Amino acid sequence: RNNRLQEKTLPWSRYISKAAAKAQLDYDYDGPLMKTTVPGPRSQNVGAVNFFCNYDDSRGNYLVDVDGNRMLDLYTQISSIPIGYNHPALLKLMANPNNLSTFVNRPALGILPPENFPDKITESLISVAPSGMTRVQTMACGSCSNENAFKSMFIWYRNKERGHNSPSEEDLSTCMINQAPGCPDLSILSFMGGFHGRTMGCLATTHSKIIHKLDVPSFDWPIAPFPRLQYPLEEFTRENAQEEARCLEEVEDLIVKWRQKGRPVAGIVIEPIQAEGGDNHASPDFFRKLRGIARKHGCAFHADEVQTGGGSTGKFWAHEHWGMEDPADIVSFSKKLLSGGYFYRDELQPYRIFNTWMGDPSKNLFLAEVLNVIRRENLLEEVARSGKALLDGLYDLQAQFPGLLSRARGQGTFCAVDVCDAATRDRILLQTRDKGVILGGCGESSIRFRPALIFRDYHVHLFLNIFSDVLAHNK
Amino acid sequence: RNNRLQEKTLPWSRYISKAAAKAQLDYDYDGPLMKTTVPGPRSQNVGAVNFFCNYDDSRGNYLVDVDGNRMLDLYTQISSIPIGYNHPALLKLMANPNNLSTFVNRPALGILPPENFPDKITESLISVAPSGMTRVQTMACGSCSNENAFKSMFIWYRNKERGHNSPSEEDLSTCMINQAPGCPDLSILSFMGGFHGRTMGCLATTHSKIIHKLDVPSFDWPIAPFPRLQYPLEEFTRENAQEEARCLEEVEDLIVKWRQKGRPVAGIVIEPIQAEGGDNHASPDFFRKLRGIARKHGCAFHADEVQTGGGSTGKFWAHEHWGMEDPADIVSFSKKLLSGGYFYRDELQPYRIFNTWMGDPSKNLFLAEVLNVIRRENLLEEVARSGKALLDGLYDLQAQFPGLLSRARGQGTFCAVDVCDAATRDRILLQTRDKGVILGGCGESSIRFRPALIFRDYHVHLFLNIFSDVLAHNK
Repeated sequence: RNNRLQEKTLPWSRYISKAAAKAQLDYDYDGPLMKTTVPGPRSQNVGAVNFFCNYDDSRGNYLVDVDGNRMLDLYTQISSIPIGYNHPALLKLMANPNNLSTFVNRPALGILPPENFPDKITESLISVAPSGMTRVQTMACGSCSNENAFKSMFIWYRNKERGHNSPSEEDLSTCMINQAPGCPDLSILSFMGGFHGRTMGCLATTHSKIIHKLDVPSFDWPIAPFPRLQYPLEEFTRENAQEEARCLEEVEDLIVKWRQKGRPVAGIVIEPIQAEGGDNHASPDFFRKLRGIARKHGCAFHADEVQTGGGSTGKFWAHEHWGMEDPADIVSFSKKLLSGGYFYRDELQPYRIFNTWMGDPSKNLFLAEVLNVIRRENLLEEVARSGKALLDGLYDLQAQFPGLLSRARGQGTFCAVDVCDAATRDRILLQTRDKGVILGGCGESSIRFRPALIFRDYHVHLFLNIFSDVLAHNK
Repeated sequence: RNNRLQEKTLPWSRYISKAAAKAQLDYDYDGPLMKTTVPGPRSQNVGAVNFFCNYDDSRGNYLVDVDGNRMLDLYTQISSIPIGYNHPALLKLMANPNNLSTFVNRPALGILPPENFPDKITESLISVAPSGMTRVQTMACGSCSNENAFKSMFIWYRNKERGHNSPSEEDLSTCMINQAPGCPDLSILSFMGGFHGRTMGCLATTHSKIIHKLDVPSFDWPIAPFPRLQYPLEEFTRENAQEEARCLEEVEDLIVKWRQKGRPVAGIVIEPIQAEGGDNHASPDFFRKLRGIARKHGCAFHADEVQTGGGSTGKFWAHEHWGMEDPADIVSFSKKLLSGGYFYRDELQPYRIFNTWMGDPSKNLFLAEVLNVIRRENLLEEVARSGKALLDGLYDLQAQFPGLLSRARGQGTFCAVDVCDAATRDRILLQTRDKGVILGGCGESSIRFRPALIFRDYHVHLFLNIFSDVLAHNK
């Protein structure tokens, strides 16, 4: 599969950037600067740690390690840094004495919120509420968000089954001892390859890696196939439509089957792009039909946007690409939103969802400012532009290195490409890092790109230069 | 039950404080100051919200609301404020520019920790590690802490069953589809009345209130009775020992029964004092024997110190009152520790425990300073002293109002007293609040006391004066 001829006729040096030599962002560095291999001598190697970081010196798109290596970061703390490191707008916010007490006094938000907190949530989260949703519940992390979203769907489903909100005596007495009907045998339908977190409810819907699930008790919940599409999507529309139809049919079969075995599907949970599972895409048509199936069978529909949300697909929510007025009943988020949580339709009101912290107002303070920066600097347009440059570059590279790369795909900068095997992928990740670019792996042998929203054309070309160099050495 | 004679012969005014009229804390207010009933006109009433707070003006033991009411806070955000509001030491920490980037750049701690983070954890959490433990895993909240602690116990148990760490082919293939043996039918034994969180794994071990559990699918895990002791404990040693023996016997029966039905107990989880469930105590002897039963049957032993940890019992961990070298295999925490997490013995190493944030270094920054304040100001001794004054006061009040109060109990300031019925309890809580003292309810009709560690004798007397006044009006 290693096509040496093609590699020779398309020399990697073609990627030497023609773009401006400056980063255009006054708070960014000009480029990577490597002093040692990574992890360097000052990064003690502890367990799963990649290396230790100097967050004081990190800036913009660049993460600096304790050995002074400055790396262009296309992974951004597993996709959780929205506008780069030490953004001046966030530093300025820290300098405002009016914000002090928000950091120092963490409230029990559900019972004792700060003055004007509803207004502050309206300015931040509600200003980016998904279509059809006007309500949001914050949570401390992504897993808690999905766990509580599932609970909201179960409670909603049971009230729908009852026809009213008053539980029976039997409900009340059995729930305290973990038994039906109080703790009903309801299920959540999820997809093979999906990832929704690692706490026990979430984990029962996660099917991306063995290491996540092994040895942890689970629920007998239905698992549908996620479409395995061919890329580029536009070249395989007929084949992909067939594959999606097959999966949708299976979804309906599973819903019927689980209803018959007394474990009705209360909700369907799905990522707009399966991320941990290997950046697997499906078409807007697939999601629209899946939403229709959920409605037809009376299941809630939960779009998990923990990794896709926050702008990196070129729209604030990946589900906006579906073009629906009413895309979901629940949309959960975390990572780039800086706090976990979920939006929900009125019917799924979470009066019974509660815990001590229920989020963290200091994170909302940052989020409001992040949203200001996104709007002021038109970052979603920037993402669309740099995402196109990145994907075009990946298309070129896979044409140039067909034995190494395949299936380049992406939306905005939320891109990925497959490497011929896992060992080569892992080697390429380390070599690219030693040349000053941080990437992430996902799925069996994919590389995923998760830059911050301030990733520009300039950085794309920087990256492509380095990456093509590494690929040439692995041809 | 309402003994008017006794009430008349012991007038409530006996509680007018003889203590110094000053709070002794220069960052504290002198006393409550009420301008309206609570919630006041500026506190919009939204769902479960008690009232809206002015955290800028709150200080020390006093929470100020948006109507300018200043209340002595004996509930402290569901027991999660360790050293009061806006403590000068925490404000000072915020003014240090070296700390800025820790707030602005939240890392994926498991892979890209900040420089010297192990040292910082050693200075903070490891400096208060429970006896026999040298390792800690931070998490974003209490529920995530318990979920992941459970996972650690399951993984440990399965490796013990296997006799080695290598899963079989069948383990690997079944776990991805939620089935045994990959997702084994293991269980966690919990106690009736216990509370361990509200995500789905935790919730299967929570049995305190119907509203927490209703409509959420659960696991078939064993639930043991928690001792129902008579108070004061020292007056009922024989009866209480019998009750504890009954519960321990039931624990062993359940372990055997669940092993026989193919759902072996991998771990036992218990609170040193059941908090949400009504401040139920058990003796050190009970916990020592329970620990022995866990060891005998090969179950891990998990002490959930989310509410009891952090000093309010007069020791940093409530389990220190058991007087054991080796009190548990896992100790989880959150709330007063400002971040979730759990300590664990080496054998329960959590190499497979992971998520994006895995805690928050900015919370650790605060915790290190909180621990400095606790040591510098000998706050654990203060807690023991003010706790004794509080409990003595409650004993006196229940003698004075036997128709209203009973079963006063506590350790340090972690105190509670029962009210004759839930409606009266709720009324007393509201009336006390309108006089400037915030208390919490727990269990069916208990009042729980959860002041900050800076709660002094002076505040005890302030509280007792107000509380006896309210009780007199409810006699």
